[in-house]
Amino acid sequence: MRLDPIAIENLVSQYLDEDIGRGDVTTDAVLTRDIRARGKFLAKQNLVLAGLEVAEIVFQWFDPDIQIQAFHLDGDAVTAGKEIARVTGPAHMLLAGERVALNLLQRMSGIATATAEYVKVIDGTGAVITDTRKTAPGLRIFDKYAVHIGGGHNHRFGLDDGILIKDNHIAIAGGISAAIKRARKNASHLLKIEIEAGTLAQVKEAVEGAAEVILLDNMTPEQVRECVTYIRENEPEGRNTLIEASGNMSLETVRAYAEAGANLISVGALTHSVIAADISLKMNV
Amino acid sequence: MRLDPIAIENLVSQYLDEDIGRGDVTTDAVLTRDIRARGKFLAKQNLVLAGLEVAEIVFQWFDPDIQIQAFHLDGDAVTAGKEIARVTGPAHMLLAGERVALNLLQRMSGIATATAEYVKVIDGTGAVITDTRKTAPGLRIFDKYAVHIGGGHNHRFGLDDGILIKDNHIAIAGGISAAIKRARKNASHLLKIEIEAGTLAQVKEAVEGAAEVILLDNMTPEQVRECVTYIRENEPEGRNTLIEASGNMSLETVRAYAEAGANLISVGALTHSVIAADISLKMNV
Amino acid sequence: MRLDPIAIENLVSQYLDEDIGRGDVTTDAVLTRDIRARGKFLAKQNLVLAGLEVAEIVFQWFDPDIQIQAFHLDGDAVTAGKEIARVTGPAHMLLAGERVALNLLQRMSGIATATAEYVKVIDGTGAVITDTRKTAPGLRIFDKYAVHIGGGHNHRFGLDDGILIKDNHIAIAGGISAAIKRARKNASHLLKIEIEAGTLAQVKEAVEGAAEVILLDNMTPEQVRECVTYIRENEPEGRNTLIEASGNMSLETVRAYAEAGANLISVGALTHSVIAADISLKMNV
Amino acid sequence: MRLDPIAIENLVSQYLDEDIGRGDVTTDAVLTRDIRARGKFLAKQNLVLAGLEVAEIVFQWFDPDIQIQAFHLDGDAVTAGKEIARVTGPAHMLLAGERVALNLLQRMSGIATATAEYVKVIDGTGAVITDTRKTAPGLRIFDKYAVHIGGGHNHRFGLDDGILIKDNHIAIAGGISAAIKRARKNASHLLKIEIEAGTLAQVKEAVEGAAEVILLDNMTPEQVRECVTYIRENEPEGRNTLIEASGNMSLETVRAYAEAGANLISVGALTHSVIAADISLKMNV
Amino acid sequence: MRLDPIAIENLVSQYLDEDIGRGDVTTDAVLTRDIRARGKFLAKQNLVLAGLEVAEIVFQWFDPDIQIQAFHLDGDAVTAGKEIARVTGPAHMLLAGERVALNLLQRMSGIATATAEYVKVIDGTGAVITDTRKTAPGLRIFDKYAVHIGGGHNHRFGLDDGILIKDNHIAIAGGISAAIKRARKNASHLLKIEIEAGTLAQVKEAVEGAAEVILLDNMTPEQVRECVTYIRENEPEGRNTLIEASGNMSLETVRAYAEAGANLISVGALTHSVIAADISLKMNV
Amino acid sequence: MRLDPIAIENLVSQYLDEDIGRGDVTTDAVLTRDIRARGKFLAKQNLVLAGLEVAEIVFQWFDPDIQIQAFHLDGDAVTAGKEIARVTGPAHMLLAGERVALNLLQRMSGIATATAEYVKVIDGTGAVITDTRKTAPGLRIFDKYAVHIGGGHNHRFGLDDGILIKDNHIAIAGGISAAIKRARKNASHLLKIEIEAGTLAQVKEAVEGAAEVILLDNMTPEQVRECVTYIRENEPEGRNTLIEASGNMSLETVRAYAEAGANLISVGALTHSVIAADISLKMNV
Repeated sequence: MRLDPIAIENLVSQYLDEDIGRGDVTTDAVLTRDIRARGKFLAKQNLVLAGLEVAEIVFQWFDPDIQIQAFHLDGDAVTAGKEIARVTGPAHMLLAGERVALNLLQRMSGIATATAEYVKVIDGTGAVITDTRKTAPGLRIFDKYAVHIGGGHNHRFGLDDGILIKDNHIAIAGGISAAIKRARKNASHLLKIEIEAGTLAQVKEAVEGAAEVILLDNMTPEQVRECVTYIRENEPEGRNTLIEASGNMSLETVRAYAEAGANLISVGALTHSVIAADISLKMNV
Repeated sequence: MRLDPIAIENLVSQYLDEDIGRGDVTTDAVLTRDIRARGKFLAKQNLVLAGLEVAEIVFQWFDPDIQIQAFHLDGDAVTAGKEIARVTGPAHMLLAGERVALNLLQRMSGIATATAEYVKVIDGTGAVITDTRKTAPGLRIFDKYAVHIGGGHNHRFGLDDGILIKDNHIAIAGGISAAIKRARKNASHLLKIEIEAGTLAQVKEAVEGAAEVILLDNMTPEQVRECVTYIRENEPEGRNTLIEASGNMSLETVRAYAEAGANLISVGALTHSVIAADISLKMNV
Repeated sequence: MRLDPIAIENLVSQYLDEDIGRGDVTTDAVLTRDIRARGKFLAKQNLVLAGLEVAEIVFQWFDPDIQIQAFHLDGDAVTAGKEIARVTGPAHMLLAGERVALNLLQRMSGIATATAEYVKVIDGTGAVITDTRKTAPGLRIFDKYAVHIGGGHNHRFGLDDGILIKDNHIAIAGGISAAIKRARKNASHLLKIEIEAGTLAQVKEAVEGAAEVILLDNMTPEQVRECVTYIRENEPEGRNTLIEASGNMSLETVRAYAEAGANLISVGALTHSVIAADISLKMNV
Repeated sequence: MRLDPIAIENLVSQYLDEDIGRGDVTTDAVLTRDIRARGKFLAKQNLVLAGLEVAEIVFQWFDPDIQIQAFHLDGDAVTAGKEIARVTGPAHMLLAGERVALNLLQRMSGIATATAEYVKVIDGTGAVITDTRKTAPGLRIFDKYAVHIGGGHNHRFGLDDGILIKDNHIAIAGGISAAIKRARKNASHLLKIEIEAGTLAQVKEAVEGAAEVILLDNMTPEQVRECVTYIRENEPEGRNTLIEASGNMSLETVRAYAEAGANLISVGALTHSVIAADISLKMNV
Repeated sequence: MRLDPIAIENLVSQYLDEDIGRGDVTTDAVLTRDIRARGKFLAKQNLVLAGLEVAEIVFQWFDPDIQIQAFHLDGDAVTAGKEIARVTGPAHMLLAGERVALNLLQRMSGIATATAEYVKVIDGTGAVITDTRKTAPGLRIFDKYAVHIGGGHNHRFGLDDGILIKDNHIAIAGGISAAIKRARKNASHLLKIEIEAGTLAQVKEAVEGAAEVILLDNMTPEQVRECVTYIRENEPEGRNTLIEASGNMSLETVRAYAEAGANLISVGALTHSVIAADISLKMNV
Repeated sequence: MRLDPIAIENLVSQYLDEDIGRGDVTTDAVLTRDIRARGKFLAKQNLVLAGLEVAEIVFQWFDPDIQIQAFHLDGDAVTAGKEIARVTGPAHMLLAGERVALNLLQRMSGIATATAEYVKVIDGTGAVITDTRKTAPGLRIFDKYAVHIGGGHNHRFGLDDGILIKDNHIAIAGGISAAIKRARKNASHLLKIEIEAGTLAQVKEAVEGAAEVILLDNMTPEQVRECVTYIRENEPEGRNTLIEASGNMSLETVRAYAEAGANLISVGALTHSVIAADISLKMNV
């Protein structure tokens, strides 16, 4: 996944507008505009850095000449106490951008740090960690990029770039077979079909329907293992069905799912319950 | 704080665009557009509900005739297992709006639930819990509204509707006295002046400068108590300085700060580290 | 493919703005605003109707109470001389929307009519006609919808909803094998991989790389037949490679490609060289 | 007519957004972003070039440092096989802009080529070829610019910059005399009045009303000649009525209209039924 | 001239956003949202009413059910002390819209009142009063509509809907003859040519160039009379040159210009130096 | 108050769009685009300059290389006949931006000039002149900046950055005491409370409610003096109530209000009834 600077600039501009509104009345009252300052981003915990590039865009949106000296790059593991980057420029602009830059950097580094922990826990199993669409509304591009930086894989971005037939679709469509049949007929010839299954019976129906990807939802590791075995024994030679597991994964439980044979493990908490990484920005003249 | 439906609609429309993009290819492939369905929002944990009104706007943005039957209102304490609301309408529209509605509802209820816990912990002290600007970028209106629903008070919305002279301002301006003097001269006559103080020496300077609000940052409860005593003994009769405490508050520590005499206690984690409340939406025909 | 009314309204509003600008100075000078009129859409040639729904949106964008009585629906074959629909409402609004409505209706019906001719020519072969991204900039949603109405299938909408590795990618990536290998590693697990091949040698490389879809570009029907035979004889049991043919198709040549075994035949001229269908709109009071 | 770069950039950006959406998943999967490439625009038929300047804006919208070396300018007659221009830059940006650039260049060159043919056919008659408002919605600025490049004259851009009282206005207003009288009273003193006439009787009414421009619609060349004669014999000395002919013009019939004395001949097909010029873009590293 | 409700709504929405920003903190603090109120618009001076329709749009932008009872219409002469209209609805919405509604109503009525005075002063001369482009930026549509309501005529709306060759054009183009010749060649056949002349010598050049409209700028009434005489004696039979006078017109001087034979007299002060009409809005429950 | 260049650019772009629309048909017809010209801004009356910086933005919006040589700065008193600035660049761009630049410069200088007169009249009294929200819709940022440049102070920008409880609020809320009590409970702790009082009785209620700011509306200077005396004698030591006077101030009456003890005097006419300063722009090659 890659960040498109133009799309990001529009979002960043919206965030700055949200925070600054009609102007920074404190800074305008307290400082003249000719003062230059510098600020240090400090890691106050161990973290995987994500979002520094975005923080740069925040500051440079105001003034292309603001200088940023990076001591670490997105993806680096940074230990508590280390300086991440230094920023130099007009004091009133640094103060106006400070909060938005920190809010993004702390959230994204929080996501990357958590993702890296999940990735480490399943190391060697061959499975990959993926995100979900359970992101903070409006922030999906940043949330998913942070997962990518943390070593996770990205699931579909939205409803338009992948077919995933979920429980609600199946309930309304009248079953897995009917749903797959309709999807095969109507969907783009460039898209695979992923279907959610909550029971072995549903898995069997999905295999029969020749689903290219099967999502095992809210199962125990043992149930996942049973389904994986069924799939591998019953799929035709060339199909290589991809198997995804999901449902309230935690650092404690995730390895068992990987070892049960899932190819992908999706973790909603990576983005729906983010603990911001502790990063400070201290300025002086 | 109140939600302005027009501002919210614009944001909701942006979130839907983020999630749906060019269209819900799964639903379009699997279901015809004439099918109607209903869905149940269920609380899967004890929570303080916030965002149901916003979830309604999500669905009604598609179709004003989608019916929502609410069994609870924003602000209600809902116990695990209870049905929150029921939604009825065209199946393809419910499926297209599902994720955005849940993402907002889960985040906002998570914030309200956490806020209510903080509010409860300081009950009887006379202090109030407030939020900060450490919100998810673009979501400030929802984050702050959820704090309000959870019983918290809202601090300034952005940089333009309140004066708060922080450590970085003071460092650059050359001290508290200089900063207050400039603010008094330049700021709107309708705004009070709040100043951050990290030491008793800074508190003394703030009292001398007649700051209307003093923010005690990163102090121990004992240090807060000492500063409160100093302020109350040294402020002129009619001033009634407001005293705010902040800095890595937790449910364990917050009551000590309230009992130390702070009028307001601001808690960044309410919005920068949100644990989404567990709410599901199950549909059928 | 389905038209999203909200997306269309935005485009229609832009087109009306393009045509009307600051106002219809002729109508404003010649007619008072209290005059009501009616207009008849007439087919002046045999055509497959497409865009009437869009024309309705054009008029109703001005005034939801404008009445449209449709005698035909999108997809109908209409013979020369027949009345397509009747529109009634304020004269100045009908006159302001006339040109945009006709420009869309004539273009879309032109596309649907041409598509239907191609579809008819390959009838019984099992192949399908698809469009390309060679649409008029800004009009893709209308162009592709008209192809759908004419009986064609829609290829990917844009660069983001399908993988198609074309000649330029291959030339830059250093060959088909390298390109497929990278795509397999980096692309979403929900997307198939389509690759363009211009020679049998390239086809062999594509089959070896296990491409799910192969595009045979600028070949003769004989060459297509040879490639199809190769693919079918060399693909593993369960793969069922989809085969697309493209390159300067015409009504004269297209059936030979279908009979050569292509599953999909893409025709750029359907949308890059549109002959507007002749439809008039005559009004009176 | 001139192209306003700012207005064009907005449109180009919209077209790129239409084609690229969330990103070029093929190129992102197959190529790294550090690869540079070059591409050659080749004329695959004889054509009058139009839109190269626009194609440049497409590529430079991504990256101002993309280099374009033009071997021909808009307005040049280019023979089949000739190289039109060479473009050099980051491969992933060239690939992302390729389709939009080609779609515009092929359409605009198609229009310019057709226009130049019409202009050539009436050479020496003193008449001029003009376009109409029968353009592809949203593309009027490009369509009309291409007509201008091809040697045609531009009729009014939209409903707001010229008065043209057409058949529908006349039918609703109750006749030519009434319509002209009202227009004379209400319209800006800076605008001439053009009126459509379908019969000699209507022409007489228009001359009597002192119309500055008369549009002879759907007449034979003989009818046009008769009307021209009437107008020239009956207009007052200083009026110099401009005479326009329109209605299903073709390369075969247009010269007869010019020789019949029309000053302007408007041709809807120039923009409503465009045959894209065949231009390719081949890239390598 | 007519007001297009859609264009106005966009502007009104922008004005409300300017005034309200993040919300009406006073009303939100002081009143609950369930209170209904009514307000009376009172004329506190004699005035020509303009903008009531716009004020309605301001209030109805919030809530379509706000009731407005109008006792006067745009264009009415209202005497001091009279009630103009009554508005009823939710108190917090009336208070939020009050200032924008009044600012527009007072400005527009100020313009209409001043225009009506100019129109009255030249009554019987056959000349008309026109506005200029010296309007408040962003408010041209309202400023020009108010002139229209006051009985004035509207000159061109902007640079794109009429040709007016002014002193700066002439200075740069190298004289009136050159400028007219180029305009005749390049401009749309639907536009007349107006040229500014500051001396009789320039007037002679304009007549020679067959300008359809001549603007006599910054002349005394005597000079205007001399130029009018020259034009009328030297123009060909059918030309009927329109003559406009401009330049620091006042209520004292304008009649002399009208009597000197100018057809149009343009008055910049109508819109560049507006005295707001005194109108109040008093509310109660 | 400070101008935010980004916000201004958006507004300036809107104003240019309003004036230029589809293009400057006069300049395009009369001049080629390769001509360079220069223009002189001349003061044709004594004035306080405001808006030159904005005029620069107007021209540089077209072309960053347009050169502006300023002989005076915003805030300078310029005497009639003096050259304010010189602008050099492409002639067609100077002509396209001329009117918008002048309209802004003349309005803003008119406001600054009037403000400076008010400020001068109350010199030595210690009171300050402030503006109101009675600005031209959409132009508030420019209107208020011009007041600032003229030496005035800015009252709140909009409804969201200050609490001012006015007559209509009081009437609906049921009196001053009730309104203050509610405001104290609900409003942000960072905002003071200003309340309008029309009588001494209301002033007493406001003092009792501990309002931080009291607005004396529509009183005579004698009444203001009486209220000031009451406030000063009855407020607690540390309160220092700010006293504002308003209501149809004129250059003749304003000093009496200042001498009566008002701290702030707000003058609506500064922005609702602006007399444009006379400034010309003459160009040549």
